[in-house]
Amino acid sequence: MNPQEKHQELLNRYTGILGKIQHYREMAGLAHWDMATYAPKAGKSIRSDALGTLSTEAFKMSVSTEMQSILTELSKEEHFNQLPEKYQKSVEKDIKHLEKFQKIPEDRYREYVILTSKAQNVWEKAKEENDFETFLPYLEKIVDFNREMAELLGYEGHPYNALLDRFEEGMTVEKLDSTFGELKEGIQTILTNIQGSSKTPNKRLESINLPAEKQKILSEKVLRKIGYDFESGRLDESVHPFTIGLNPKDVRVTTRYQEDFFKTALFGTIHEGGHGMYEQNIPMELFKTSVGTAASTGMHESQSRFWENVVGRSEAFWKGLLPEFREIFKEEITDITLEEMVEYINIVEPSMIRVEADELTYSLHIILRYELEKELIQGNIAAKDLPQLWNQKMAEIIGIKPKDNREGVLQDVHWAGGMFGYFPTYALGNVYALQLTEALKKDVTNFTAHMENQEFGPIKQWMVEKVHQRGNLRTAEELIKEITGDGLNVKPYLTYLDDKYRKVYEY
Amino acid sequence: MNPQEKHQELLNRYTGILGKIQHYREMAGLAHWDMATYAPKAGKSIRSDALGTLSTEAFKMSVSTEMQSILTELSKEEHFNQLPEKYQKSVEKDIKHLEKFQKIPEDRYREYVILTSKAQNVWEKAKEENDFETFLPYLEKIVDFNREMAELLGYEGHPYNALLDRFEEGMTVEKLDSTFGELKEGIQTILTNIQGSSKTPNKRLESINLPAEKQKILSEKVLRKIGYDFESGRLDESVHPFTIGLNPKDVRVTTRYQEDFFKTALFGTIHEGGHGMYEQNIPMELFKTSVGTAASTGMHESQSRFWENVVGRSEAFWKGLLPEFREIFKEEITDITLEEMVEYINIVEPSMIRVEADELTYSLHIILRYELEKELIQGNIAAKDLPQLWNQKMAEIIGIKPKDNREGVLQDVHWAGGMFGYFPTYALGNVYALQLTEALKKDVTNFTAHMENQEFGPIKQWMVEKVHQRGNLRTAEELIKEITGDGLNVKPYLTYLDDKYRKVYEY
Repeated sequence: MNPQEKHQELLNRYTGILGKIQHYREMAGLAHWDMATYAPKAGKSIRSDALGTLSTEAFKMSVSTEMQSILTELSKEEHFNQLPEKYQKSVEKDIKHLEKFQKIPEDRYREYVILTSKAQNVWEKAKEENDFETFLPYLEKIVDFNREMAELLGYEGHPYNALLDRFEEGMTVEKLDSTFGELKEGIQTILTNIQGSSKTPNKRLESINLPAEKQKILSEKVLRKIGYDFESGRLDESVHPFTIGLNPKDVRVTTRYQEDFFKTALFGTIHEGGHGMYEQNIPMELFKTSVGTAASTGMHESQSRFWENVVGRSEAFWKGLLPEFREIFKEEITDITLEEMVEYINIVEPSMIRVEADELTYSLHIILRYELEKELIQGNIAAKDLPQLWNQKMAEIIGIKPKDNREGVLQDVHWAGGMFGYFPTYALGNVYALQLTEALKKDVTNFTAHMENQEFGPIKQWMVEKVHQRGNLRTAEELIKEITGDGLNVKPYLTYLDDKYRKVYEY
Repeated sequence: MNPQEKHQELLNRYTGILGKIQHYREMAGLAHWDMATYAPKAGKSIRSDALGTLSTEAFKMSVSTEMQSILTELSKEEHFNQLPEKYQKSVEKDIKHLEKFQKIPEDRYREYVILTSKAQNVWEKAKEENDFETFLPYLEKIVDFNREMAELLGYEGHPYNALLDRFEEGMTVEKLDSTFGELKEGIQTILTNIQGSSKTPNKRLESINLPAEKQKILSEKVLRKIGYDFESGRLDESVHPFTIGLNPKDVRVTTRYQEDFFKTALFGTIHEGGHGMYEQNIPMELFKTSVGTAASTGMHESQSRFWENVVGRSEAFWKGLLPEFREIFKEEITDITLEEMVEYINIVEPSMIRVEADELTYSLHIILRYELEKELIQGNIAAKDLPQLWNQKMAEIIGIKPKDNREGVLQDVHWAGGMFGYFPTYALGNVYALQLTEALKKDVTNFTAHMENQEFGPIKQWMVEKVHQRGNLRTAEELIKEITGDGLNVKPYLTYLDDKYRKVYEY
């Protein structure tokens, strides 16, 4: 073989192994989706084992000696320099991954995948029955594993940094303490203003039941409007709504219908639609490279938050949507004004459940979880103390106290899934979303008119070009700098919140 | 290690590899189910690649040197003699599989899995558009591969025997020619009697539309009645109805609703329910051994045919079901007698589409396919000639001629799926079903009264004990001998058909 053939052969081996890893992950993803939507009850625990095997095999390949030797060769100058950018970045990312994750013993990894898969079933039941004690042994094991993993992965500063980095490359407790500090203070100030205001938003819509079937029609309609592609996706129901990108042409979203609270399904669907469009628009060219993913979990969240809140809760959006909303629910609601709707969807009221929280207090729910997680990982608090600590912090940060664990510590699936380090990305998504919105408004100058006319093409297109098409060729930090010229900055978000609520609550 | 520890270690290696193969197959099965039910269009061809990878890996494991060395060790006297029966049988089956299938090159296998997965999508479109030419190149490749495979697998007598054996161990062209010869003659005699009869069954029900939603309610109700377990299963819709056992606690069936022809969904559902109950009742103890499967594909079919026809199309069954049927469809049908219903569901009328065929002519559709398949595999006829040969044979065997390929050669998915050798098992299922029924009636003496009272427990229980619980500890041939004392015998089936139609058609 001449050098060029040798290079090509090496690259083929690399793309071969990446393709295989993608296939395993795609199948594992399908199994996850299935367990959350259609899988019959009795088969789920057996499925967990199969899922464990598959995820473990994918993991093994990603840290295998075969992968290591390919990466070592590819990172040599004579190979690396002639690689296209996507493979250069992919190689760099894989080396970083391999160096960290090869320290995790394969058996422990498999055990963990099965544990978290089973724990999610246990959690579901525990939540239903308000039974923290049944879930506790699982949670303890999961926390222990995460602490162990932090040590194995390595970190500078706080051990929680090791876990954060899995979702948000380069993010640290040091940066978050400062960012979340500023965010908490800003939000609490606005909250105080709202609570001091004499304006009471009209809540008539709260007493109206909207049939799930019709909510589903609305959800699908709105998804289509904003640009989610049903040829490459679908909408189903699940207890905890999510988006899963199996491949760029198969990106599924789920939602949940509450007949006495239509905001859950509608805003949940728009939220997942934002995630879904990100996944659907990562270029096929990056598929089966390691940079064919979102820039970070926080950047992913910026897309869902942008569509859910910046678009979905705006007056301009509802100016366009309201006639169709009225038409769908004409049997249930005979009169409703734009003002009433905008007030209703922007009501601020400290509440127990994160996924039902209003836009303003949402980030406070995240900050609460962040503060608990980092202490858990550092070993300053124990899993068994979480119910009590949760309730105490709710009172402290949001000003209310859960009546039971169902509406407290048991409400989220994330810890059952082992996703420590994930929650902070939800609040980062809010921050990024408004940084992006400021940049978008400079390019798409008639942003408001587009929303009023329900023409979302230009808005979606801007996001596709600036964010989605970049895949993970940039980290979130690099991308936000590239697009806005600025680093992580909470000011646009706080300004946006203050502008909005000042109008709604007339404070 | 002492000998006992060594034995245990060897057995652990064996169960480990079997477990892993099961996990891969489970995931591949899930992908199949998903593609047939909910997967978004655009992602399917990418999914085919992932499915190809997974099936190939499972196949590779089953013929790996690791597997070979385990099996060689386990078949040595000192190990084999202390194995429980299930592992002895499992080892024997795996050795047979390995010796045959290790001759198939891994790359060819993978190519084939991807080819047949893609061909199924092509076929779906080709059928829709009545376009055989688009499908032909795929079909040609699939036939070639099957001919090649027959040579690699080896056979005595006819090359088609190699393919038959994959679905029905020990079955041969020689046996089938004789069995199907007798069956064809017997059915054609009954058909002649019917066509000579002056009795015309009441067809009023043909002009009545039954809403899919209500048909679904009926389908679910009947599935529950006969003993299909929804905790371990579910009912969905797909173009071509099927049953898939992902694991014993996750066995899914599908059906298809035609509003102007309720027999499709109802009998299709009962049929798949019969398959489903077989899969649901293979003992957990045999799970993750190679004998934790049905005895054969034909025996599988005996279960679906038993419930669909022997039970579902009987007067006794409808005596019990009719009041509920009337209640569900009270808006659509105001009066319907038992006699009318029994006549309607037992109408005999030569027709084009196998899956819609009446019980009598059904086996003729199978014999047609069998006669074409064996000639294709022997190379006596070519794929491109199939449309013409199909039409010619339809006229010869069933007495009618398709107007296009959609209702002719393109109607079934099986060839697109590469399942040559599979069709004969459908007719064998009919034959086995009535052999089993004769035996069952000796033990469950009030069989008819049970059906009238819609008490299916004792009937199901007999099938579970005699058939399902045996898994593949016996071949179909051994099992039918064990249960009935007789080998494959078409007489009970022909007698049953003659009795039934003599009554309906008064010939």
